[in-house]
This record gives sequence, C-alpha cells and structure tokens, in this order.
Amino acid sequence: MSFLDEVPWNREGLISAVAQDAKSNRVLTVAWMNREALKQTVEKQQAVYWSRSRKRLWRKGEESGHVQKVVEIRLDCDADAVLLKVEQVGGIACHTGRESCFFRKLENGKWATVDPVLKDPELIYKK
Amino acid sequence: MSFLDEVPWNREGLISAVAQDAKSNRVLTVAWMNREALKQTVEKQQAVYWSRSRKRLWRKGEESGHVQKVVEIRLDCDADAVLLKVEQVGGIACHTGRESCFFRKLENGKWATVDPVLKDPELIYKK
Repeated sequence: MSFLDEVPWNREGLISAVAQDAKSNRVLTVAWMNREALKQTVEKQQAVYWSRSRKRLWRKGEESGHVQKVVEIRLDCDADAVLLKVEQVGGIACHTGRESCFFRKLENGKWATVDPVLKDPELIYKK
Repeated sequence: MSFLDEVPWNREGLISAVAQDAKSNRVLTVAWMNREALKQTVEKQQAVYWSRSRKRLWRKGEESGHVQKVVEIRLDCDADAVLLKVEQVGGIACHTGRESCFFRKLENGKWATVDPVLKDPELIYKK
C-alpha cells in the first residue's frame, strides 16, 4: 500500500498543501495537490501542485525559478492536508514578488499590505 | 465594504484556514471557515471554524478547552486562505492529544507518527 492511498482525496481529487519555510518557519503558500502532484513532489523532492485555474500540474518555480525544495512532508490527523517544509529558492514564494503569499494583515477591519515586494514580478516572469 | 467581502468564498462558501503557533511558529491545524466563522473569529479573537462533517460552526476548544486565541490574521494573495497566528491554550491543538495535527511524517514511503500524545483524548473529551 502506497502512502498515496492513505489520503482521502476530496471529490475533486485534491488535498490542501501548506508550504512553510524550513528555516524561518514562515508560512509561504497554500495550494492544492492531486495524487500525481504529491507523487511527483516526493519523487522530485520539489513542490508540485495542481493548478485549479490552469487545470494542470504546476511545478512550482517552473517559470519563476522560485522552486520549493522539499525538506520534510507531513500529513494531518484526518489526512486532508499536507505540510511541506521547504527551502524556498530565491526567497520569494509569491507571484507578486513577495516572500510569502500571506502579505496582507487584518488591521482595524481592513486587509493591509504589510510586506515589501522583493522583486518586480515583471522581472520574475520574463517573456 | 467589509474585509469579509474581499474573500471569494468557494462554491461551498468556504476558505482554508491555517493556524500557526505565534511563538513556536509550528503549523497546528488546517481547517475551514465560512463567512460567519471568520466574522466570529475576528469578533471573539478566538478561532471559529466551519465543521464540514458536523455542518455547523465549530468554536475550536468548545469541548476540549483547547482554544486558539488569535494574535494575527493574514490573507493570501488570491484571498482563498487565511493564516491565523494563535496562542494555543493547553499547548494541544489536535483531537488526538498532540501539539499539532501534523504528527505524521513521510519516512521511506510511509507516514510515520513522530510526535507524542501529550494528553489522553479520553481525559480531554470528558463526558
């Protein structure tokens, strides 16, 4: 029995995948994986997600170079979420050029952008 | 316009909610919130989730006492996940009596339980 069989994939065949920086412990991204994405993540030791918008496997960093190298993979108690501890190549996880996708903080009832852009997305996603 | 209106609730009216210990930065739980759960989480400054299995609001800790006091709330770039930094009362987030729900680690192709039970669940969920 494969570790993949222990995951009760939801009706869309997905589970949540949280990526956390292995050094700073900052939560970087929350994305989705299907069975093939988790399989490839383990094989390549690099995060591979399922892009719901593009409806295809998304090898994180395939365009940006901002690969997430896998340090550790954990599963939660009801097996519907995985936690990846990763080395975030380039120190940028978000497509906006920020370290983490969680750059907005609730302050006085509003989502305030509190983290800086480290690199212009136009420079990250060169044509 | 409310901060709640900026969340593109999925077709079930939910978003993912990751809770992270504000001190240790350990990821404790991944759960779901609907609009009312996020509203109450902000009002009470304690994590309130939507239980998909019980189909009702789940005031985290309502039975166990293992409340998650909110220190900070963040929203990700595509606004489909929130990150709560919390003070985990009792130091136990998981219904199995462990600190974190992510107590299984992928080792040699198997999910190995690597974290100890800190308190017997039968003592946590007293009738």
